[in-house]
Amino acid sequence: MATAITLPEIDATEWLNTEQPLTLAGLRGRVVAIEAFQMLCPGCVEHGLPQAQRIAHTFRQDDVAVIGLHCVFEHHDAMPPLALRAFMHEYRICFPVAVDTPGTGMLPQTMQAWALEGTPTLLLVDRQGRLRARHFGKISDMAVGAEIMALVTESEAGEQAQQPPQA
Amino acid sequence: MATAITLPEIDATEWLNTEQPLTLAGLRGRVVAIEAFQMLCPGCVEHGLPQAQRIAHTFRQDDVAVIGLHCVFEHHDAMPPLALRAFMHEYRICFPVAVDTPGTGMLPQTMQAWALEGTPTLLLVDRQGRLRARHFGKISDMAVGAEIMALVTESEAGEQAQQPPQA
Amino acid sequence: MATAITLPEIDATEWLNTEQPLTLAGLRGRVVAIEAFQMLCPGCVEHGLPQAQRIAHTFRQDDVAVIGLHCVFEHHDAMPPLALRAFMHEYRICFPVAVDTPGTGMLPQTMQAWALEGTPTLLLVDRQGRLRARHFGKISDMAVGAEIMALVTESEAGEQAQQPPQA
Amino acid sequence: MATAITLPEIDATEWLNTEQPLTLAGLRGRVVAIEAFQMLCPGCVEHGLPQAQRIAHTFRQDDVAVIGLHCVFEHHDAMPPLALRAFMHEYRICFPVAVDTPGTGMLPQTMQAWALEGTPTLLLVDRQGRLRARHFGKISDMAVGAEIMALVTESEAGEQAQQPPQA
Repeated sequence: MATAITLPEIDATEWLNTEQPLTLAGLRGRVVAIEAFQMLCPGCVEHGLPQAQRIAHTFRQDDVAVIGLHCVFEHHDAMPPLALRAFMHEYRICFPVAVDTPGTGMLPQTMQAWALEGTPTLLLVDRQGRLRARHFGKISDMAVGAEIMALVTESEAGEQAQQPPQA
Repeated sequence: MATAITLPEIDATEWLNTEQPLTLAGLRGRVVAIEAFQMLCPGCVEHGLPQAQRIAHTFRQDDVAVIGLHCVFEHHDAMPPLALRAFMHEYRICFPVAVDTPGTGMLPQTMQAWALEGTPTLLLVDRQGRLRARHFGKISDMAVGAEIMALVTESEAGEQAQQPPQA
Repeated sequence: MATAITLPEIDATEWLNTEQPLTLAGLRGRVVAIEAFQMLCPGCVEHGLPQAQRIAHTFRQDDVAVIGLHCVFEHHDAMPPLALRAFMHEYRICFPVAVDTPGTGMLPQTMQAWALEGTPTLLLVDRQGRLRARHFGKISDMAVGAEIMALVTESEAGEQAQQPPQA
Repeated sequence: MATAITLPEIDATEWLNTEQPLTLAGLRGRVVAIEAFQMLCPGCVEHGLPQAQRIAHTFRQDDVAVIGLHCVFEHHDAMPPLALRAFMHEYRICFPVAVDTPGTGMLPQTMQAWALEGTPTLLLVDRQGRLRARHFGKISDMAVGAEIMALVTESEAGEQAQQPPQA
């Protein structure tokens, strides 16, 4: 995916695991890995969230920020922030998580603004704040490790990685 | 591991899965991932070799060459090249494999020259031919993907990756 | 465990996946496998519930009834029946599940009456309605298959299995 | 499978992990689980042999005897008894293993006499010496545990289990 778009900012009703709300603008200079998930989505629980935890443990915090986006688009009443908090405690999610603001229809605001297809989706933003990859569903750890490192090794000034993996 | 050593060339009695014997010198310009293994080593069968296959499928051949080194240091009579060939057929190993030349003691020549601790060991050589990493035992796919990509994004001229993973 | 106790009946506010509430008395004549779980308990989601599903698929319904007991003893507000329904839909739980009646303290009524240590717990009741095994935590599929079959092969008249597995 | 055949005896050139050669006749009174395998068969290494080890650990030795049958029908030169011994050492196979006697064609003698389709195959023999199940390929641990226990609970006098699993 060759893209140079900048994602609209996250529209959240609240943030967990962080004292201050985060902004993509404020994370400029670091690579940002965003895991969009729902707490009652089996693919997120089994694959997406554990992989996001491994990203957080594999890369330096100075290089890569890991963020969760809880974007509830089904079973809305079953996944309020109060339940999300219990879920994060039980699953020991240690990175900051934004609660996507409910929209007028099924989709929450950020999910709609970013045109996400569903959960889990992993988005990668480069040091300059440009969206560089968006993976809906399952992607291998090796490909994720390679893709993120390709962004990490880019300078902040902004040349693109010469050699993305085949994935 | 910060190292700038150049590995001695592979000393092999024969090569499988390649028409011509390979040399590290001849692979200069590409990153080389070398999986040192024994066909009757459970950790190699379960972890090391499948990971090497995933490296071969994740990265571009122009960027990363994957090589096996069959370095028999125990049960020598049980793992002759004839058996290795059957093993590689059954396990569908698709990358070139060098048969390490037997030594005067237990250890074969290349294994001794490279001072390997055992199998499986994954060695990473950069585009300039310098040994950059050596992992004995198990290492996660995400860390391997990241480490290799850090070498891939280095220019052939040779600056080091600024940001290795923590791993 | 050599026990001949009869469990008190399940005290439930409601039952899901069944048109009529079930009773242990009504299931007399069949072996009953009861999976006590909480929807936000990682060990239940990863191990206990998938194993209960495999029990339901491995044995004949005429021989073995599989029942879930949702016994919430922590994060009470996060796991109301409404959320449980969404969870069961997403995880495709196909066996009847009783919602354990809240108690005066942390523990719900059935969990307290049965003196359960936590979740997941698998209880096995024989054709005569006697509690024959109670496993808190992880137990292997092979041992579970063997234990249940030992009860299945007992006649309803009631001799005990001669040969329980070592487990 | 409803069968009452008695398997011909194992025709072996040698036995490993046992001081005396075994016979099915000599094991009468116990259930016998026989794992037919080849050391270079990936399905045997990954699935069949670990499952046979779990059988040996789950059931009482007085009830269930676990035996391996190394029946080489391909890559004959790659899997001589000498190599098998190294393999069994590395993979810590702890049950007795018979080396199937080479035949005049590709198939070894016992494999041919038993009309096995390939490896891995798990055969179950009841306390009276009758073949009761034969599974080529993968079968779940829960079903195996149940099937074996159904045979274990039969008396030596010989009534059949009333309630085989659906499997």
